[in-house]
Amino acid sequence: MEYCVTTKNNDSWYIGTNNFDLFKADKTEAIMFQGNGYLGIRATAEERNLNERRDMFVSGTFDAFNDEVTELPNLPDLLNMEIIINQRAFSLSTGLIENYHKHLNLKNGELIRSFDWLIDGNRISFKFSRFVSMNDVHLFVSKLEITSNQSDLNIKLNSGIDGQYSNSGTQHLVEGDKRLFDGKILQLQEKTQQTNIGFAFNVTQKAYIDEVLLKVKPDIRMDRRQIFDEYNVDMAKGKRFTFVKYANVYTTIDSDVGSDTISDISIDAIKRASLLNYGELLNKSANTWNINVWQRSLISIDSDDVKPQVAINFARYQLAANTPKDSRMNIGAKGLTGEGYKGHTFWDTEIYMLPYFTFTMPEMARNLLKYRYLGLDGARKKAKANGYWGAQFPWESAWSTDGEMTPPWGSADIVTGKPMRILSGSLEQHITSDVVIAVMQYLSITKDERFAEEMGYEIILDAAKFWASRLEWDLARKKFVIDNVIGPDEYKEHIDNNAFTNYTAFWCIQKAIAVIDVLKNSNPEIYNGLNLKLKLDESYQDWISKVNLIFLPKPNEFDVIPEDDTYLQKKIIETAQYQSDGGHAKIFKDYNLQQINDLQVTKQADVLLLVFLFEDLFSDDIKLVNWNYYEPKTTHDSSLSFSTHSILASDLNLADTAYDYFERACEVDLGTGAGKSNQGLHMASIGGVRVLDG
Amino acid sequence: MEYCVTTKNNDSWYIGTNNFDLFKADKTEAIMFQGNGYLGIRATAEERNLNERRDMFVSGTFDAFNDEVTELPNLPDLLNMEIIINQRAFSLSTGLIENYHKHLNLKNGELIRSFDWLIDGNRISFKFSRFVSMNDVHLFVSKLEITSNQSDLNIKLNSGIDGQYSNSGTQHLVEGDKRLFDGKILQLQEKTQQTNIGFAFNVTQKAYIDEVLLKVKPDIRMDRRQIFDEYNVDMAKGKRFTFVKYANVYTTIDSDVGSDTISDISIDAIKRASLLNYGELLNKSANTWNINVWQRSLISIDSDDVKPQVAINFARYQLAANTPKDSRMNIGAKGLTGEGYKGHTFWDTEIYMLPYFTFTMPEMARNLLKYRYLGLDGARKKAKANGYWGAQFPWESAWSTDGEMTPPWGSADIVTGKPMRILSGSLEQHITSDVVIAVMQYLSITKDERFAEEMGYEIILDAAKFWASRLEWDLARKKFVIDNVIGPDEYKEHIDNNAFTNYTAFWCIQKAIAVIDVLKNSNPEIYNGLNLKLKLDESYQDWISKVNLIFLPKPNEFDVIPEDDTYLQKKIIETAQYQSDGGHAKIFKDYNLQQINDLQVTKQADVLLLVFLFEDLFSDDIKLVNWNYYEPKTTHDSSLSFSTHSILASDLNLADTAYDYFERACEVDLGTGAGKSNQGLHMASIGGVRVLDG
Repeated sequence: MEYCVTTKNNDSWYIGTNNFDLFKADKTEAIMFQGNGYLGIRATAEERNLNERRDMFVSGTFDAFNDEVTELPNLPDLLNMEIIINQRAFSLSTGLIENYHKHLNLKNGELIRSFDWLIDGNRISFKFSRFVSMNDVHLFVSKLEITSNQSDLNIKLNSGIDGQYSNSGTQHLVEGDKRLFDGKILQLQEKTQQTNIGFAFNVTQKAYIDEVLLKVKPDIRMDRRQIFDEYNVDMAKGKRFTFVKYANVYTTIDSDVGSDTISDISIDAIKRASLLNYGELLNKSANTWNINVWQRSLISIDSDDVKPQVAINFARYQLAANTPKDSRMNIGAKGLTGEGYKGHTFWDTEIYMLPYFTFTMPEMARNLLKYRYLGLDGARKKAKANGYWGAQFPWESAWSTDGEMTPPWGSADIVTGKPMRILSGSLEQHITSDVVIAVMQYLSITKDERFAEEMGYEIILDAAKFWASRLEWDLARKKFVIDNVIGPDEYKEHIDNNAFTNYTAFWCIQKAIAVIDVLKNSNPEIYNGLNLKLKLDESYQDWISKVNLIFLPKPNEFDVIPEDDTYLQKKIIETAQYQSDGGHAKIFKDYNLQQINDLQVTKQADVLLLVFLFEDLFSDDIKLVNWNYYEPKTTHDSSLSFSTHSILASDLNLADTAYDYFERACEVDLGTGAGKSNQGLHMASIGGVRVLDG
Repeated sequence: MEYCVTTKNNDSWYIGTNNFDLFKADKTEAIMFQGNGYLGIRATAEERNLNERRDMFVSGTFDAFNDEVTELPNLPDLLNMEIIINQRAFSLSTGLIENYHKHLNLKNGELIRSFDWLIDGNRISFKFSRFVSMNDVHLFVSKLEITSNQSDLNIKLNSGIDGQYSNSGTQHLVEGDKRLFDGKILQLQEKTQQTNIGFAFNVTQKAYIDEVLLKVKPDIRMDRRQIFDEYNVDMAKGKRFTFVKYANVYTTIDSDVGSDTISDISIDAIKRASLLNYGELLNKSANTWNINVWQRSLISIDSDDVKPQVAINFARYQLAANTPKDSRMNIGAKGLTGEGYKGHTFWDTEIYMLPYFTFTMPEMARNLLKYRYLGLDGARKKAKANGYWGAQFPWESAWSTDGEMTPPWGSADIVTGKPMRILSGSLEQHITSDVVIAVMQYLSITKDERFAEEMGYEIILDAAKFWASRLEWDLARKKFVIDNVIGPDEYKEHIDNNAFTNYTAFWCIQKAIAVIDVLKNSNPEIYNGLNLKLKLDESYQDWISKVNLIFLPKPNEFDVIPEDDTYLQKKIIETAQYQSDGGHAKIFKDYNLQQINDLQVTKQADVLLLVFLFEDLFSDDIKLVNWNYYEPKTTHDSSLSFSTHSILASDLNLADTAYDYFERACEVDLGTGAGKSNQGLHMASIGGVRVLDG
């Protein structure tokens, strides 16, 4: 295993780096991300650098720009510190840098960066510390310490709120008032363009020499979307300059505050926070990490190599840092760690991340599933718009009730020069099954009857209604088929009878029938309520008449389950050269999508995901045959692929292979592959790493 | 005189620098700006740097973000070249840079930057050349040459269209299609959010080793708002790599093309352009510079010092590069050279820049005045909204017909913490006089009767109607007064009877009466048409009854013309310490606006502008007395101040003082003052420098 980060003294709770490469920094910015499920900030440096991605997000604050789909707006930067020492603008690219260390403490969520800056014959020591509070989710505190042993320093420090950032050029936020409170609290108010979500950002700062608070008042500088304090401090040799920046964010959709008063509430909160020092606030936050996360999910790996334990700690840290507690929101495919996938939620949550929460923090799992319950109306709209009944869950979703959010268009086709349609929003329909799979797993583990009655049954039943209406009668086969879908193997568009899709659709209807059978007997009141709402009596007859006529692709003469109607007739090519580390899509250098459609090449676990998730449906012999068939044909162009392969290999007693895939799953983000995590972490792979030990 | 730029071999046609400071680069980016009145590009480097302002604008393409006033959108970057040599990302901050030269040739508009990059034991020579075509206003061509004498090179070069830039965070452009034509032309289409102006940006590129065109096809990379060619070229030692980037921009409001077909038209144009090489296209452009600019405005200064001639060449260059030929647009206070003042037009055009055009290129002056004619409806709306008649011209204007565009709110007051109102849009009313002054000057110099009949008279007459309705009867004085204005001295808000305002209002009405008197006799047909439209018979009576009752602040017992009703009663302070180089507003460190309101301190020429513009109204003695009174009280916090002081001093035979002010006017942009031109050049000061020789 090779990681792009190192530990500190072989301690699996630290990840970081002891050197910097400005042109690769954006990868580790995502890896050393800090968050609390509400607020998320990348590990960008305080001073600006080229190639950085200075992203901060608050869960659920989706907005649309013009007629684009909604995304999480990149919020004003609270990190910034512009430092000018003896008229020299500090930058890692001027002067010399020695003793560079940047480490994230996974246990308490603190990020520390320290180094010596050698400039103009001076050696100046810098130490930056910061954390996003787990205790007060609105709060972000950072600290800068500067020591000069050789000469007096003039330190100019400009620090405040900088709203000139955007989502790769797209700006969601409308500038509101810039205010100064009590002569010392900077406030910027903004709101989203279309969804009208209000934000209040506040910063208040304190400067010390040694332990003595400076009385000097900074100048205030205001510019477009910006408000800064400008300090100018002279310090004698041997002294230490300490600067503490208290910042917070509130929004008008926060579930913990009233919507109209965020300016006042946030000002009160920053005043209260700034009564405590950095260490006191950090301790409170660390305590909450301990109680809420570490005491509830203990996993230790016995190994000479610290790396597997680092991967596990990293996975638990990122899952906690990126998962909202507000059920109107969910985990984005990249959490809050970058702009990739616009903060949207996919099946990644249900299939790859939920098991961790279901087993260790069921109330978090419940929130995440409640999100799908709140999304039922959107799912019903999508079904109706497509001519179906029941609930067809969106392939990409953002705010719980907003429904389908898959962008309709992607990049241009290199051959034709024209933009290509993105079809997953309409064709990748297994998402509806995936939600039901997660609900059933949650219910079977937690026995949470109340959730079932209030939300779970309704999801299961309405999903079955969708599937029943989705079935098409195939005259030749005399079976119900499901034509024109995209399965987990997204290389193949417009395919018929994807095994994963058909089996899970069948299973959804079967489970819904079972739910009705049980409810009618044991809980007629609940049944009657649901029947009134969903017309279950009708549906039940429909399901009974169809369920056993659903076409389920059976293993062929060689025991291979066909991925779809035509896969096994397609051309076989040598796939090894296209094997990926979860993202680079090397195969597209040689083939376009239309050509790949005619090859027996699979993007990620598809049939293998089916035999993994429904382990009782297939014998070990069948599983092994299909492993041997599909595994070599899989490029793993999706980072979701490795964890499934690892666990399935483990089930098949292929220990070395299982470990190899475990390593590859760990390396999706932690590995050395360039350019892969820049736009954010791969939360599903992180969730999958965790599943291994479930 | 001290300049931030140097010439080349003491040649007054070159301005540039032989060293670079990345933290000061944004000033020279504005100074070495390239443009043709349609398209304007700052002299940002091809590779990205910190502290750069990567701005490109097309005249007149105003858009509003949310409910902000309109501004010129910062367009997608066409400059960019990301260069990676032997796996090293090229940057001025890595390795060593030697022989650095960056010079703008003012005569042909070409910018050349060359240096050696010493890296990993290699010396690699770079030369970047580029120009914005004066011949084909849509076209921008750049060239990169790389030579390595010591070793073979692998050159990776990513170059294309990058739409991730914004106006300091505000994004006006909606991403449209990204396309690839003929496998080699990159196109990005965008449109403005509210005003729905469409843009097509095209880039096509050619790579050579020595003189041989490379056949290698670049990879195409597309990302959000981005489309790039990615080249990967190996080159043997001693060879020269040459890369030519042809780029163009078309919009749906271009007056020279049909609106619906800009994609096709722009593709045809880039194909045609790319048939010629860099030198051929540069020659065409240089030829147009020669014929349209240099042959029509010859000014040479006889001096041992090259700097005055540099300033004159610079001024003529910038006036040509920033002035649109389309009369629906005008010159922004910062031209196309930066985001400052949002591309808006102020009185800067009429009072400070127009004289140059009127005397040397009257058709340009006519276009600029026609802009005001096209703006009459907006001016009428403004008058009506304020309860007046006729045309009240907007203090800030953008698209000709859109009317008043002054932002209503500015920064927060440091004392109260609350945002402050910007009052110039409602109170700085002398702009209506300024337009008439410019029209009258144009008519008297050019004798352009056709302009007078079609547009000029209507402007003069409707302005007079405004002023007549604006007058208020003062019972005590038994005069018509003008209360509650801001004069050219913008330190004073809500003042009564600003001398400049009252005199010019009086003069406007007087001139309108004279126009009617002449027209009725000599051109009754035109008069009747105007009378029908503007009800002049009524107005004429109104003017006659009022004009001689307008209160005109007369010189007091000491021959001092009071700037307004109360100025001379205010406190006098020592002003020398607040004297500025045209921008820094030092006085606000000690006083807030309310306090300055009570001091005899003047921001810029006010009474002195009056005696300068209306030189026949006042005797030389009066002028000198007022010079001696006001000049020491003036801080020159507006860059408009110096040229007026210089010319007036010259009129008063204060030769040394006149030259000193001339120098200060030249140094507004060319001087070494930090941070002042970053957001764009001071076009009025540049126009004023020119006026000196008029």
